[in-house]
Amino acid sequence: MQDLTIAVVGATGAVGRKVIELLEERNFPMKELRALASFRSEGVKIPFIGGELTVHEAKPEGFTGADLVFFAAGGATSKELAPEAVKRGAVVVDKSSAWRMTPNVPLVIPEINAVDILEHEGIISSPNCSTIVLLMALAPLHRANPIKRVIVDTYQSASGAGCKAIAELFQQTRDTLEQKEPEHSAFPHTLAFNVLPHVEDFAGDGYTTEEIKMQDETRKIMHLPNLPVSATCVRVPVPVSHSEAVHIELTHPITPQEAREILAKAPGVIVQDDVAHNVYPLAQDATGKDEIFVGRIRRDLALENGLSLWTVGDNLRKGAALNAIQIAEELVARDCLKPRRKSGAAHS
Amino acid sequence: MQDLTIAVVGATGAVGRKVIELLEERNFPMKELRALASFRSEGVKIPFIGGELTVHEAKPEGFTGADLVFFAAGGATSKELAPEAVKRGAVVVDKSSAWRMTPNVPLVIPEINAVDILEHEGIISSPNCSTIVLLMALAPLHRANPIKRVIVDTYQSASGAGCKAIAELFQQTRDTLEQKEPEHSAFPHTLAFNVLPHVEDFAGDGYTTEEIKMQDETRKIMHLPNLPVSATCVRVPVPVSHSEAVHIELTHPITPQEAREILAKAPGVIVQDDVAHNVYPLAQDATGKDEIFVGRIRRDLALENGLSLWTVGDNLRKGAALNAIQIAEELVARDCLKPRRKSGAAHS
Repeated sequence: MQDLTIAVVGATGAVGRKVIELLEERNFPMKELRALASFRSEGVKIPFIGGELTVHEAKPEGFTGADLVFFAAGGATSKELAPEAVKRGAVVVDKSSAWRMTPNVPLVIPEINAVDILEHEGIISSPNCSTIVLLMALAPLHRANPIKRVIVDTYQSASGAGCKAIAELFQQTRDTLEQKEPEHSAFPHTLAFNVLPHVEDFAGDGYTTEEIKMQDETRKIMHLPNLPVSATCVRVPVPVSHSEAVHIELTHPITPQEAREILAKAPGVIVQDDVAHNVYPLAQDATGKDEIFVGRIRRDLALENGLSLWTVGDNLRKGAALNAIQIAEELVARDCLKPRRKSGAAHS
Repeated sequence: MQDLTIAVVGATGAVGRKVIELLEERNFPMKELRALASFRSEGVKIPFIGGELTVHEAKPEGFTGADLVFFAAGGATSKELAPEAVKRGAVVVDKSSAWRMTPNVPLVIPEINAVDILEHEGIISSPNCSTIVLLMALAPLHRANPIKRVIVDTYQSASGAGCKAIAELFQQTRDTLEQKEPEHSAFPHTLAFNVLPHVEDFAGDGYTTEEIKMQDETRKIMHLPNLPVSATCVRVPVPVSHSEAVHIELTHPITPQEAREILAKAPGVIVQDDVAHNVYPLAQDATGKDEIFVGRIRRDLALENGLSLWTVGDNLRKGAALNAIQIAEELVARDCLKPRRKSGAAHS
């Protein structure tokens, strides 16, 4: 495989920066890396392999000659520009929600459904961060004992709302400690010393788009179109890493020890479950790590053949940038950087 | 009803201070108030009605002549001293977990099961704070449409672990902002900018005592000995007020609007549910308030006849001190300050 020409759209954002960092860290085969963002970031410098990259405005022409384009900007940008990249012969790995539920766009967590990549027509979507943290724990259990019902409540970090949101959390925290009135713009209310049962936007029926994604994306990735999934997504005053309390109903009885053994063997998952020594996954410990951590594994007291567990992952790494890079690595490994089917019309 | 001689054990703690504050605020009929605590607090002064109270060590003799004794200390203190108070003719309202599951001790949330007070034999228990925040929302729904299953994940504040825990959270926060290594003693790990899936102690089967209480106390208060209740109790970096994500299965279908109407009429409950205007219960807003706040009411997507909701309450007020005071007010109103049945043996 020859080295690739790569572009990153949204290069100055929390996830885009992490994509660039991981491309370097994982020695991704590149001959050129283009850092693209909105016109406001034109000229910004980003450190890269001892030197730096200059950010340019993301425009259709910028994709000419690119083999692979990572989109780590908002959904509107992906909606507009991803088809332009595909038209110019690139394969797109999209971190936004723009294409995730489009039928001919694979939605992939490589440890779970890498094979879906083979069906791509130019765009492959990477799931929502909360969905990834959930499914890394659920999919291995499901393979052993089909899951029939999922209830999940999240404890999501500020960084899910971007770089500015982390800064806002710290500023609000300082202001509160100094008895000043904290201000908010990245969040709908003050997040410091508070919890907000509101991540993203409210859609119909009282659910947020984040909660709806957790249901819809879980069903698509696991190929279980009717799986009942109920989520409450909550923002907590943590800078990085999402935690989730999960309750699942399985088809057959399972002991916590059996579940631990299954998860211990699952790629990308680390079991941290020794409550006698206060060992369980923690947001602070998971930050900067590639794996998803699972603990507090026990019989659920309200569901038939039920399990309760606690899962934590770095939402900027496996929850976002790392998963996108892993998708790209699969594209390279499976030699399917060019779309398998005719592309263009479906995405334009 | 003549004015009463009252004692508060644990007068220097987070809940004990709040009990004294509320006795003053609610004009409880008192002729004498005794502030009692461990020997370490002997001589400490506590502000009270323009003057102050001097704290004395809690000893059996201190209960002589008392009509009513509030216990807001640890379980071991209640276990040892509550029977001494009862022996001396006082009625005990106990905030600890010591007596809650004892069969002849009523466990009471006045809005839900005030009538159980009539059966007391000297001790009445006030439930765990998380249970109160949960049941204030569930009981009114249950009366209209029996509840069959409960799954709840909590977002509990530092103050549930006492006064020192709030100070520790703030100190950890300052240390983190100043890039110092935070220290912990009230919590098993750093709570600042983190979430801990660990409240109280681990008991059997991977559950914590807090989670077991939520199941056992819910069953006792609601007189539903077999109700399936599954809880994950989590500490979040919030000083005061507990939040809870709740998922319930009911007997019959119910619309979110019907649930809102039922809860809007429930005493002690305020519905805050206007997501179009970002209105939902928040820990910071609930702090210092007497009511329990409920919002995010919507159809649960994973349970039959299911409802999801978000409930928040001040764990030091309704979650602890206020509920104890309300029990005492019921004792006065129902003229049952003296035990109904022969007391003594059962508690000694």
